[in-house]
Amino acid sequence: MTQQDPVTAALLVIGDEILSGRTKDKNIGYIAEFLTNVGIDMKEVRVVPDEEDDIVAAVQALSRRYTYLFTTGGIGPTHDDITADCVAKACGVTIDHDPRAVAILQARYKPEDLNEARMRMTRIPAGADLIDNPISKAPGFMIGNIIVMAGVPQIMQVMLDNVLPKLKTGVKMLSRSVETGGLPEGVYATPLGEVAKAHPGVIIGSYPSFDGKTFQNRIVMRAREDTVLETVEKAVIETLNRLHEAQGSGYRLPL
Amino acid sequence: MTQQDPVTAALLVIGDEILSGRTKDKNIGYIAEFLTNVGIDMKEVRVVPDEEDDIVAAVQALSRRYTYLFTTGGIGPTHDDITADCVAKACGVTIDHDPRAVAILQARYKPEDLNEARMRMTRIPAGADLIDNPISKAPGFMIGNIIVMAGVPQIMQVMLDNVLPKLKTGVKMLSRSVETGGLPEGVYATPLGEVAKAHPGVIIGSYPSFDGKTFQNRIVMRAREDTVLETVEKAVIETLNRLHEAQGSGYRLPL
Repeated sequence: MTQQDPVTAALLVIGDEILSGRTKDKNIGYIAEFLTNVGIDMKEVRVVPDEEDDIVAAVQALSRRYTYLFTTGGIGPTHDDITADCVAKACGVTIDHDPRAVAILQARYKPEDLNEARMRMTRIPAGADLIDNPISKAPGFMIGNIIVMAGVPQIMQVMLDNVLPKLKTGVKMLSRSVETGGLPEGVYATPLGEVAKAHPGVIIGSYPSFDGKTFQNRIVMRAREDTVLETVEKAVIETLNRLHEAQGSGYRLPL
Repeated sequence: MTQQDPVTAALLVIGDEILSGRTKDKNIGYIAEFLTNVGIDMKEVRVVPDEEDDIVAAVQALSRRYTYLFTTGGIGPTHDDITADCVAKACGVTIDHDPRAVAILQARYKPEDLNEARMRMTRIPAGADLIDNPISKAPGFMIGNIIVMAGVPQIMQVMLDNVLPKLKTGVKMLSRSVETGGLPEGVYATPLGEVAKAHPGVIIGSYPSFDGKTFQNRIVMRAREDTVLETVEKAVIETLNRLHEAQGSGYRLPL
C-alpha cells in the first residue's frame, strides 16, 4: 500500500429552507457516505442562507482549506438562486451565459419557452467545466476545486456520479464496528481510551443510541489498512470481554 | 406589534460520525424547526470533526456572530468527547468537576460505579449554568451565549426544552406556501422575482422536488406579520393564475 496525502472535502449546503427547518436536508448524509466510499474525507459541512456575502465567504474559506468543496442548492431559475454568481465572485472570474449550457437548454426547450429565467441556468463562471444533469438538463459545474450541484437530491446524486471521474480519490477509509452487548459507555470509556492511545493511526469513536427505553452502544474503528483495523478490533473485543467477565454478565463477544 | 432586533442562532454539530456518513444527522432539522417556532432565526450550521482546533475555532467564530450558538455531541464519557474542554478553551475559562454535576451523578450511580470516565461528564466550564437531562442524567450546560447539548437526539430534545426558558426569543417567523399546480419554475421565475422585489420585507423561496418522474414546485413566503404574508400570498396566487391562464392549463389556484 502506498502512502499518499489524504484527499479532503467540505460541503456547503446553500438554502434558507434548510435553516428554517421547512426542508429536512437529505444531501449531507448521502454525500458523506459517497465520499467516504471513494476515499475522500469530508472534514466540514456548512449550511448558509441564500445571501451573497455568506455564500461568498464560505466558498472562499472552504475551497482554500480542503482538496475539494462541494456545494448543493441555488442553481435554479428563480430569484433566490444565486450560487453560480456567488461562486464566480468568490473565484474572481466573470460569469455569463455559457454556449455549452445554452446548447443543452436549446435542445430541451422550444425557443419560445427558453425565457430569461431559464437562461439564468446557463450562467456559468468563466473557466468552469459543466457537470451533466440527465434529469432536468440544466448543468452543474466544476471550477477549480469547487463542485457546484443542484439541491434536489436525485439531481445532486447523478451530478455526483458524473463528476466523480474528474476527481482525485484517496485510499478508502475502512471501518469496523462492535456493539458492546449492553455495556454502558461509562464502564468501557477508560479502557477504550487506552486502546485508542495505543493505536494512534486508528480513529475510534463510541456512539450511544437510545430507543426511548435503553441505550445501545457501538464502537466504531476507522483506518485505511485492514490489517491495522483487524488488530484494533481484536483489542477492543478483548477489552469488552474482560469488562463483561468482571461484571459477571455472562456475555461474551465473538473474536 | 413591536419592532425588535431578530434573535439569531448558529448550530455546531460535533462528530466524526456525521462527516463519515455512518450516522445520519437528525438534529439539524429538528433544531431548525424548534428555533423557528420560538422566533429564533437559525442563520448557519457547521459540522466539524472531534478535533480540538476545529471545535474551538468554530465555537469562537459562531458565538461571536450570532445571538446564540447551540452545539450537539461530544459530551459523553469517552476519549472522543472533548466538547466541554473545547468550549472552555474557546471562552478562555477554566474547567473542572462541577459540584452540581457531581451531585447529580452521585445520585444516579453507586460510589463504586462513579468512575473516572463518568466523572468526565461532570467537567463543566467555570461560570456555566447546567441544563437538566432527565434521560441519562449527565447535564448539558449554557455558558454565555453558548448552549452545549448531547448528540443523542432524544436527550438533545429534552435539553432544548429545558434551556428554552433561559433564552431570549423573538417574534416568530410565519410562513405560507403555495403549490404551483404543475407550473414549472422556469415559467414563473421572472414574475415571482418581481413579486419578491415588490415585497422586500418578505422572504420568498421556490422549492422544486422530484419524485423520480415529475417535479412539484412549492413557493414559500416568510415574514413576521401575517397581514404582510396575506398580501404577498395573494400576489403570488394571482401571478400563478395569470400564468395558468396564459398557458391555457385550465388550472386555477383558490384565492
